[in-house]
Amino acid sequence: MRLPFDITDPVLAWAAWSRIAEPGDDRAGVVVRDLGPSTALDWLSGNAGRAGSLPPATRTMVERWAPRLDGLDIRRELEVLHRLGGHLLVPDAPGWPSAFADLGTAAPMALWVRSRERVTLDFPAGGSISIVGSRASTRYGETTAAEFALTLAEDGVAVVSGGAYGIDAAAHRGALAARGGAPTLALLAGGVDRLYPAGNEGLLHTIAQTGALVAESPPGSVPGRHRFLARNRLIAALTGGTLVVEAGARSGAISTANHAAALLRPVGAVPGPVTSAASAGCHWLIREGRAVCVTSAAEARELVSPVGDYLAPEPLVAPGLLDDLAPDQSRVLDAMPVRTSAEVESIARAAGLAPAEVRGALGLLELAGRVRRSGNRWGRVAS
Amino acid sequence: MRLPFDITDPVLAWAAWSRIAEPGDDRAGVVVRDLGPSTALDWLSGNAGRAGSLPPATRTMVERWAPRLDGLDIRRELEVLHRLGGHLLVPDAPGWPSAFADLGTAAPMALWVRSRERVTLDFPAGGSISIVGSRASTRYGETTAAEFALTLAEDGVAVVSGGAYGIDAAAHRGALAARGGAPTLALLAGGVDRLYPAGNEGLLHTIAQTGALVAESPPGSVPGRHRFLARNRLIAALTGGTLVVEAGARSGAISTANHAAALLRPVGAVPGPVTSAASAGCHWLIREGRAVCVTSAAEARELVSPVGDYLAPEPLVAPGLLDDLAPDQSRVLDAMPVRTSAEVESIARAAGLAPAEVRGALGLLELAGRVRRSGNRWGRVAS
Repeated sequence: MRLPFDITDPVLAWAAWSRIAEPGDDRAGVVVRDLGPSTALDWLSGNAGRAGSLPPATRTMVERWAPRLDGLDIRRELEVLHRLGGHLLVPDAPGWPSAFADLGTAAPMALWVRSRERVTLDFPAGGSISIVGSRASTRYGETTAAEFALTLAEDGVAVVSGGAYGIDAAAHRGALAARGGAPTLALLAGGVDRLYPAGNEGLLHTIAQTGALVAESPPGSVPGRHRFLARNRLIAALTGGTLVVEAGARSGAISTANHAAALLRPVGAVPGPVTSAASAGCHWLIREGRAVCVTSAAEARELVSPVGDYLAPEPLVAPGLLDDLAPDQSRVLDAMPVRTSAEVESIARAAGLAPAEVRGALGLLELAGRVRRSGNRWGRVAS
Repeated sequence: MRLPFDITDPVLAWAAWSRIAEPGDDRAGVVVRDLGPSTALDWLSGNAGRAGSLPPATRTMVERWAPRLDGLDIRRELEVLHRLGGHLLVPDAPGWPSAFADLGTAAPMALWVRSRERVTLDFPAGGSISIVGSRASTRYGETTAAEFALTLAEDGVAVVSGGAYGIDAAAHRGALAARGGAPTLALLAGGVDRLYPAGNEGLLHTIAQTGALVAESPPGSVPGRHRFLARNRLIAALTGGTLVVEAGARSGAISTANHAAALLRPVGAVPGPVTSAASAGCHWLIREGRAVCVTSAAEARELVSPVGDYLAPEPLVAPGLLDDLAPDQSRVLDAMPVRTSAEVESIARAAGLAPAEVRGALGLLELAGRVRRSGNRWGRVAS
């Protein structure tokens, strides 16, 4: 079978393979990467009519892929893409995300990118995060996703998500609300010409203006359920780490988190009320040690940053009145009257310490500015 | 100096030491456990008047403890206790909690127990839990503490807390609301004759009826701040593990959790909204790996049970439509029309698989009851 386009052009050949093979078909990944996309396409089209005469293993592959050669002219899909202002990325060409190397033969054959700006998909270390979660989200989860995304985007961290209802949409919206900062990217399960789901059409359109819509299948592809699962591996692989904001029992966000963990990307999860079914998946991830507990945008940034590059400020666990004192000092301070003053012997008796011990502790407390002497008597310094 | 009671009676001697030494005074713990309480008391009272002539180390100890011998007649405190219907426990006597062995020389000298019922303090493995948290609690935290405590008590797990406002009170109330089940115990920082804080007087009174109020200091002791910190070590040591329900920045619950961890007791923390300051301490404990994330009474019970004795049911992370299927099967099922049926070739084309692969997958899906054949066509079985 002869194809109507120049299969020796590797860009066209990669693009064609992204239509012939289903996302994540790693047998195709092996063949295409072994032979190169043009040679593999030449081999496939040459054998398309005579699968029956091939040895069984080869025959299965030809029977799997050949039906999609019928009527294939990938220049049409590219034209659709270009009309939408998009561009194609193919493996190892400039702009191809180096992070996808970790996917091996399951890496996409091409990326169909719809964006008005030239947005990088090859993020520097610490420069990207995937924020995912349930479609069945709560107000709490949406607010949290949006606030974290806004702060992260303003800190220059690109927010990647799946363009779905609920947490995905909230994360995109938060990132879009940032002043300046990093763009937001939506990885779609269908073609970038289909703004799916319909209720997010406006949002996805806005993302295409300042960020990017990205798909591994060409325009015209239907976002089937299997493609959503395959798409999740891309969300997990593309960024420095994945944050699950809310995830119920059946949430695809858990599958994204599992992909990220398998790719040795850090996984975080945002806790919520134990009474909220929308947080059950997050709590499960944390409890099982599959995710770090993340409670702020700063902690999310720490999650995706190279170790030591960025540390979230510790929460203000301020020391209590006695927390930072040695035991004798705390007993002495505790034994002192609140408003008046007292002599060493009386403090010693109240503290259950010897007068010499009390004098030593008072000296150190005086140096720390916690007590003050006047004559024979000692009093607290109001804190 | 001669004391007005029989110091050769070990019960009186231990009781006296619980008044002479401040809680957690481990120098006293060493001396009293080395010499025995009666000999130690004899030594102290014999040297009380002549501390100046002793070598420095001994002198410090005598000066520390001797002032509290003035007017000491521990029979008076015991009389107060008995009038309240209480009883005294001394180290290693029947009923003494074996768990306190882990405290070594920091173990209490005595336990002043106020309870109408004979309530055990020597819990079997998995039979007790400490539930602690902020006084500045939220409705969410209080409800959670009460519900967990109720379920745990009905499951025979004794709930121990500190009798304070907020989470402590909610835990006690929840346990009291259980039908039958295990009693609840409040470990107090002051004497068991003082129902402190005043706003919990009614609650503490009820606990004394069906559970127990317990203190290491005798009746009349003032609940000073240092004694609260010392009391926290007892809460941590007495039970199989400690659960922090809500803890803000300065919460003493963090100190209880630290004590529990130092004693190798499991520590759990209940997550909450990241927007709630009352949950910040819990999230910090979880994030730092100091506490397990606990979201239900069953998980709390698992926390304090010996490994393998009791496992909380996994949350219902129900498989999605495709989750439990092999990749080929999920692609085939996904490629099938939702309401009508299709032939193998058409399914193969949609799935991006060879017809032979589709036939194999359909066979397995049929066995699993997910698809049905009629003639040449295959359709989904509604799930």
